[in-house]
Amino acid sequence: MFTERIYNFSAGPSMLPESVLKQAASELLNFGGSGTSVMEMSHRSKDFLAIFEETKALLKEVMGIPETHEALFLPGGAWMQFAMVPMNLIGTTGKADYAVTGNFSQLAMKEAKKYGDIHIACDSADLNHTYIPRQADLNLRPDAAYFHYCSNNTIYGTEWDYIPEASVPLVCDMSSNILSKPVDVSKYGLIYAGAQKNMAPAGLGVVVIDKNLVGNELPVTPTMLSYKAMVEADSMHNTPPCYNIYMLGLVLKWIKSEGGLVGMQAKNVEKAKVLYDYLDETTFYKSPVQKEVRSMMNVPFVTGNEDLDNAFCKEAEKKGLSNLKGHRNVGGMRASIYNAMPKAGLEALVAFMKEFETKNR
Amino acid sequence: MFTERIYNFSAGPSMLPESVLKQAASELLNFGGSGTSVMEMSHRSKDFLAIFEETKALLKEVMGIPETHEALFLPGGAWMQFAMVPMNLIGTTGKADYAVTGNFSQLAMKEAKKYGDIHIACDSADLNHTYIPRQADLNLRPDAAYFHYCSNNTIYGTEWDYIPEASVPLVCDMSSNILSKPVDVSKYGLIYAGAQKNMAPAGLGVVVIDKNLVGNELPVTPTMLSYKAMVEADSMHNTPPCYNIYMLGLVLKWIKSEGGLVGMQAKNVEKAKVLYDYLDETTFYKSPVQKEVRSMMNVPFVTGNEDLDNAFCKEAEKKGLSNLKGHRNVGGMRASIYNAMPKAGLEALVAFMKEFETKNR
Repeated sequence: MFTERIYNFSAGPSMLPESVLKQAASELLNFGGSGTSVMEMSHRSKDFLAIFEETKALLKEVMGIPETHEALFLPGGAWMQFAMVPMNLIGTTGKADYAVTGNFSQLAMKEAKKYGDIHIACDSADLNHTYIPRQADLNLRPDAAYFHYCSNNTIYGTEWDYIPEASVPLVCDMSSNILSKPVDVSKYGLIYAGAQKNMAPAGLGVVVIDKNLVGNELPVTPTMLSYKAMVEADSMHNTPPCYNIYMLGLVLKWIKSEGGLVGMQAKNVEKAKVLYDYLDETTFYKSPVQKEVRSMMNVPFVTGNEDLDNAFCKEAEKKGLSNLKGHRNVGGMRASIYNAMPKAGLEALVAFMKEFETKNR
Repeated sequence: MFTERIYNFSAGPSMLPESVLKQAASELLNFGGSGTSVMEMSHRSKDFLAIFEETKALLKEVMGIPETHEALFLPGGAWMQFAMVPMNLIGTTGKADYAVTGNFSQLAMKEAKKYGDIHIACDSADLNHTYIPRQADLNLRPDAAYFHYCSNNTIYGTEWDYIPEASVPLVCDMSSNILSKPVDVSKYGLIYAGAQKNMAPAGLGVVVIDKNLVGNELPVTPTMLSYKAMVEADSMHNTPPCYNIYMLGLVLKWIKSEGGLVGMQAKNVEKAKVLYDYLDETTFYKSPVQKEVRSMMNVPFVTGNEDLDNAFCKEAEKKGLSNLKGHRNVGGMRASIYNAMPKAGLEALVAFMKEFETKNR
């Protein structure tokens, strides 16, 4: 039983800023004198539309979304986009290229095979996804409808250190590093992300799409999975996940107050440094990832001894350092340190790691 | 500005029980001593799995779901099911029959046309959907894969007063009257409902499906839209809308404490009677709906004068009787009085209706 809030290192859903949760709790029964909860508002009501418009404007402002692109708030997370992307975009040529650099990028690639001719542009499985292929190693087809990659690999702890270049529209799954640093949105045909890591509670997908790509969906595309239908209805073809959108708005206001994405990046670099500096120093824990492509969001580390790893996670849990167990594909531990994880969480983690090292060396 | 909570007659999203909102607010930052918000919990964590299992068990208990059926918690609402139902069920014969008794049933029918041979079993459009066709009037095909109907028509204010009989699996959109009264689930092949009227905040779809119907999806079905994938993963093929599921759990506990669905029905009949009794008495307001099939959930009424209708809604809004404007297809007013609307809300509405009648007769 914890009377205080713990440090939750979960890969997602994950921590939300405490100030955001406090505000949500304080206005849960009566939002802004409306006499209702945001959860109870008609999505067509004046009160909710104001929340919706504000959230959308904030997302555009914070991410620097150009006029050429539209932002959508959709049900489901990244997995829904695994089908939605090919159903909507592959129609022009019937072909698409995928970079495989981790678990989700592979799953996206497999799902896309239902809808066309899918080609693997690169695959880092040969070294258990501990590196990111270089631009020169990408085998891209000029007649692909798009090139898809995942900018941060949650399980393996790698992050693309460059935006790949392609002659075709670039599609990116940013689920685990969206809003963590500035990104040049104009370079992308489509960006998508499940909300539950850096944005809002699970159940919301955010899509940023070049309007020129809208309107080529396959005839079998469900209306709910049509970008065209959603652009035309401003994400309200049906009742959207209203409360998640409201929470995203609160998170975006918090990001703005922290200096926007430039401020987020500075904080994230500083936070990750606390852990990576220690990992560079110690020989007790090892980071399996190539240094140049270490993720600022997900940091796997192992002792090399499964029993020790298990003991580590168990003891950490008791101290309010939660969800540190690594994914079975990598083993060991993983600290997911998204935007809402404070630096104090990293300091507490490293202090515990040192203590554990001293006891078990 | 309202300092107190108002009576929200919205057709959906709509009111949630005040006790449920209070509990959600009280544990929003720290659920049950976990040190985290439910919004932040990994969907694979022990804490969240306990919430998930409890909610599922409560749904099965409250609805009386037999062992033959499985309950699923899916992203999106009814609109997602409009495609998911045919994509998963029509494959066996390529044909399905639809009853058209309102707006959503018509939209479901149109969406299904993408996936097979769709036949209209009945259509009440001839009298602007003010009635429900009788069993003898249903034109059903013996080789349809299923027969689809919508048990309550939110816009038109009609509710099926019987469960139709068909020789093929019965599929029902119960979005606007699920959990409002006991239902014999065993008679259905599939029941679905968007959560935002009687269950939880928007962004969650609940599906109750006969396990025998699982496994016939069309090859183009996205994995996220496959009942088979979702049954196999116990609704966790991806991260589900976790917070909505938690809220549904709280609502189900509230329903249990109010006497389950038998108690809900008694309360709903009593509540609706307050309004219908007055509508039967007055000549100032008219109910457009055939008496036998009046909905217990959505009650349209008109004065017959558009200016008066507008004045009514405007004045009511100021008094904290909110979202009473009727849908443009019917005009006038509509009071949506789902489970969470207290009887006092109906009494306040009728008192205002009388006052308005006296002033404007």
